[in-house]
Amino acid sequence: MLDVCLLGTGGTVPLPERWLTSCYVRCEGTAALIDCGEGTQIALHKERISCKHIDLIFLTHFHADHTAGLPGLLLSMAKADRTDPIMIIGPKGIEDLLKGVMLIARYVPFEIYYRQIEGKEETFEFGSLSFTAFHVKHSVPCYGYEINVKRTRRFDPKKAEKNGIPKKFWGLLQKGQTVEHDGQTYEPEMVLGDERKGIKMVYSTDTRPCDSLREHAKDTDLLITEGMYGVADGLEKAVANKHMTMQEAAALAREANTKCLWLTHYSPIEHNVEEYAEELRAIFENTVLSKDGERADLAFAHEGVRDD
Amino acid sequence: MLDVCLLGTGGTVPLPERWLTSCYVRCEGTAALIDCGEGTQIALHKERISCKHIDLIFLTHFHADHTAGLPGLLLSMAKADRTDPIMIIGPKGIEDLLKGVMLIARYVPFEIYYRQIEGKEETFEFGSLSFTAFHVKHSVPCYGYEINVKRTRRFDPKKAEKNGIPKKFWGLLQKGQTVEHDGQTYEPEMVLGDERKGIKMVYSTDTRPCDSLREHAKDTDLLITEGMYGVADGLEKAVANKHMTMQEAAALAREANTKCLWLTHYSPIEHNVEEYAEELRAIFENTVLSKDGERADLAFAHEGVRDD
Repeated sequence: MLDVCLLGTGGTVPLPERWLTSCYVRCEGTAALIDCGEGTQIALHKERISCKHIDLIFLTHFHADHTAGLPGLLLSMAKADRTDPIMIIGPKGIEDLLKGVMLIARYVPFEIYYRQIEGKEETFEFGSLSFTAFHVKHSVPCYGYEINVKRTRRFDPKKAEKNGIPKKFWGLLQKGQTVEHDGQTYEPEMVLGDERKGIKMVYSTDTRPCDSLREHAKDTDLLITEGMYGVADGLEKAVANKHMTMQEAAALAREANTKCLWLTHYSPIEHNVEEYAEELRAIFENTVLSKDGERADLAFAHEGVRDD
Repeated sequence: MLDVCLLGTGGTVPLPERWLTSCYVRCEGTAALIDCGEGTQIALHKERISCKHIDLIFLTHFHADHTAGLPGLLLSMAKADRTDPIMIIGPKGIEDLLKGVMLIARYVPFEIYYRQIEGKEETFEFGSLSFTAFHVKHSVPCYGYEINVKRTRRFDPKKAEKNGIPKKFWGLLQKGQTVEHDGQTYEPEMVLGDERKGIKMVYSTDTRPCDSLREHAKDTDLLITEGMYGVADGLEKAVANKHMTMQEAAALAREANTKCLWLTHYSPIEHNVEEYAEELRAIFENTVLSKDGERADLAFAHEGVRDD
């Protein structure tokens, strides 16, 4: 349902075996990247994900470890004969960033549209996905993203029968369509029951732990945050550089009642993140010290009844 | 003497196991890159070459597969606490390119100087290295680079004795210093004999075979050129895209009497370049189908006498 792949897990500076942070998400016909560090096009290639069909790129902020892969990615899309426009969304200043990208990329034969995130929070809807940008606490303007896959409301056959809806219209009404027939108007409301939980994930880096992140992280199926440092003096470094330690991320995940935490955006001083596994899982059990290519296909929660 | 390392051998689009073209050269205290495609900073890291101490970056042209690694490289230099200025040299338009680089890199805490190559040919001298940019034949303004390490003229003890030079001044005079002593002036010319061949290499990509390249490639110790295509219809593609086939490069190397040819800048359609080895070595025996990390330390030719 919601295919999620961490293309790179490096922060600041890439390592030979660790790409810079970029996250791919896809649901039904919509595919997006969040961030696009140097080398993202190669990481996509490694994961056998076509760069041609990415519809959207969201940027958390404009530090180059999150953006410098854009010229190469756009040109690889061009080499793959892309003609569809692309949409790039980011904080204030996106227009200038894209000017810089185009001074390097030069010739991109498809349209590049952009949207500047306004205010503390803004939601963008694309196909079955919604992306809510929320302001976080870094050294420059920076946003996290909450991604939601909405689920149709439960179908209530008793309600449908009670309202005398002909069975042949049940399917259309459940999908949200209004039906006119023999002078009668049938509304979706006449067959729909309770709301159902969709899929909710959050991707947020770089930031100190903050209220907006805590709020959006609540009850997520997947929370992806930076775990910049794990070392003993990590907190001091994290406070100084406006980042978050692995331990802080695990505590935030526990507090937020997330199902699973993936850590990413490791400092290049952190060569062997697995050494913190035990310590972190004592704070929050479902902590994954992600590697490049970490991937999951998030599904709607099983309810013991058919979805449609 | 002249340390040469091909950091990447890919053209156009990087592959998971093939970085984009960039060439590192170092001689005594001077280190330079020619071109800086996406991922160059990672390739340097892999080759254990410090990015901090690169003095110069030469750009052949402004297609992004030769330039998009600049923001990341400059930022990694910054992270390595570089404070020394850097010099970047390239064709007309370098100022705009660097504007783009800085819109992505944002904060670089050392000076970036640049020089725009003027005319068909221009020579830049740095330490013991000279770099001659020469115009080649691509779809956009593009330069190849001839790199020379000069060698001091042979020391001629008979001439020195004949000119009555006190032995204690021989060393200084040989190094090119004029010495004043007891009202006498001793000139280097009084002890120096024949010119001696230095080290000459050429790096040139992207271009069709052309006279300027043929001329500069003459009698090189090392010639590095693109071998964009090896396939049967490669010539057709090369002519259309203003590139050079492997076979054309080998023929040019033979004609130029170079000692050794390294091919680079392979098209992403060329996955296994070794399949052309036999065919190419029948054209020019010392053809190397370079891999990422191809490295050599070129020395002055042995003359059977001590150098100094």
